[in-house]
Amino acid sequence: MMDVCTLGTGGAIPLPERALSSLDVRVGGRCLLIDCGEGTQVQLRKLGWGFKCVDALLLTHYHADHCGGLPGFLLSMTKADRLEPLHLYGPPGLRRVVEALCVIAPALTFPLVLHELPLGESRFGAIGLDITAFPLNHGMPCLGYCLSLSRAPEFDPARARALEVPVKLWRHLQAGETVEVSGRVIAPAQVTGSPRRGIRLLYATDTRPVEAIARLGAGADLMVLEGMYGDDDKLPQALKNHHMLFREAAALAAESGAKRLLLTHLSNCIDDPAPYLPLARAVFPETETAQDGMTVTLRYPD
Amino acid sequence: MMDVCTLGTGGAIPLPERALSSLDVRVGGRCLLIDCGEGTQVQLRKLGWGFKCVDALLLTHYHADHCGGLPGFLLSMTKADRLEPLHLYGPPGLRRVVEALCVIAPALTFPLVLHELPLGESRFGAIGLDITAFPLNHGMPCLGYCLSLSRAPEFDPARARALEVPVKLWRHLQAGETVEVSGRVIAPAQVTGSPRRGIRLLYATDTRPVEAIARLGAGADLMVLEGMYGDDDKLPQALKNHHMLFREAAALAAESGAKRLLLTHLSNCIDDPAPYLPLARAVFPETETAQDGMTVTLRYPD
Repeated sequence: MMDVCTLGTGGAIPLPERALSSLDVRVGGRCLLIDCGEGTQVQLRKLGWGFKCVDALLLTHYHADHCGGLPGFLLSMTKADRLEPLHLYGPPGLRRVVEALCVIAPALTFPLVLHELPLGESRFGAIGLDITAFPLNHGMPCLGYCLSLSRAPEFDPARARALEVPVKLWRHLQAGETVEVSGRVIAPAQVTGSPRRGIRLLYATDTRPVEAIARLGAGADLMVLEGMYGDDDKLPQALKNHHMLFREAAALAAESGAKRLLLTHLSNCIDDPAPYLPLARAVFPETETAQDGMTVTLRYPD
Repeated sequence: MMDVCTLGTGGAIPLPERALSSLDVRVGGRCLLIDCGEGTQVQLRKLGWGFKCVDALLLTHYHADHCGGLPGFLLSMTKADRLEPLHLYGPPGLRRVVEALCVIAPALTFPLVLHELPLGESRFGAIGLDITAFPLNHGMPCLGYCLSLSRAPEFDPARARALEVPVKLWRHLQAGETVEVSGRVIAPAQVTGSPRRGIRLLYATDTRPVEAIARLGAGADLMVLEGMYGDDDKLPQALKNHHMLFREAAALAAESGAKRLLLTHLSNCIDDPAPYLPLARAVFPETETAQDGMTVTLRYPD
């Protein structure tokens, strides 16, 4: 199970009910954030969630609307006496940006572990997820992230009993470890069924459409894409500012065979996104627009 | 007339209903801010106020809870195509901090004019106010600000008529200029009464009590002081973290002969400040605790 919460859904300029970019992803009691726009720490508090379980922060790029909340977030963690390391991931320039922002958040009580990612595709792991970072097209270094939660093959008690594996050793096999029973080595594959599909989430904001979104997001349970501009008439602005229209994001979701699309990073010019939603749904019916604090729970398929 | 609005009243850590430090001061259609904590730009929007009339930003010190909103504020002004310069004032280190924060707010459309103030007392002017910066005691360079709006002496039409000054020249005399009437030079003092008291506002957060607060704030129309801790039992924390108790702030207001005290920069541990207010009012009855978006209008005395 994976819980995904759009903490902030405003694009570029915040509104009272739309904080700047941040997505919260929770798996097994641990949490990572993608981006940390101004207001992120307050959005977490509104949900009654602490910062303690946040293990990692993935930054897409280094504009204030995506990382302006970082120094305040770090300072608040320090005031809460955090000791556990925080892992930061982002495109080239990460160290320079974090060191600059820490000028106003000095003397942290916990270590920052910086992982500067290349601008091509790269893979890493955090909070039990297999993550692929991939380049976007925003006129500056900018990354999207595809997060996969794998699922262990189904455990077959009948096969375990047939091999005379004591019940107390089952959990080791379920966890993917081999066990020894009366001198025989039993591997997990001997007591489990065929591989099962996990959960996939793809996140990409601040970009023109790129092929990697549809490719990496193939069959995704959820795509969270930017919907900076609703109206098709805004294409010239979208091209100029390297953003997407609702319809363009929906076309990527349709191409990928994703199950569901959430549009976020809405321009402050969009008071109410409802009138533009049909433009996206005409291309990909399972489209919704995100709101601050909206949570989607993604479950393994039955 | 001077309008003062506590945009953000949270100390150190924000709460959903308490943004981080920022005070908005408006005089004659122009505006200055003192501090720009995370959330400042949203607080301005909530009030329906734009950024265009903000001429100056005075920073007290360089902790994220006091200047974390700066990069987002600058970026939003740029997205609104601001062209007018923005004047920034702050203690030593201003250039280093602003340059660091601008790493995530590059390519501004308007000039930043930096005024690095000394750590002693200094005077400067902004939006028609005479401002005194003065050092506080926060264990790091930190300034308080005393803002004075002077009032022109009353114009006496009878004296102007007696001197045969044509009515069309009166506005020059009212503005403090000399005029010439049939070869005679008439000075403002010849047609105005005695000096009149103006309006004074003193702002000091993040400090232990210092004598300059009571001295410079003598007879102030409004003091806005930190009330980081409500309960007297918190004195050890106040001493350790260089902050004040409600009672200590009230004692400074009483000593200064100020008319009114507003306590801001409330600790996130104070859910409701009401139970602690009597501690301050016992010392200085005209004490209130600030809330986000609270506006106080200060008028010239009749």
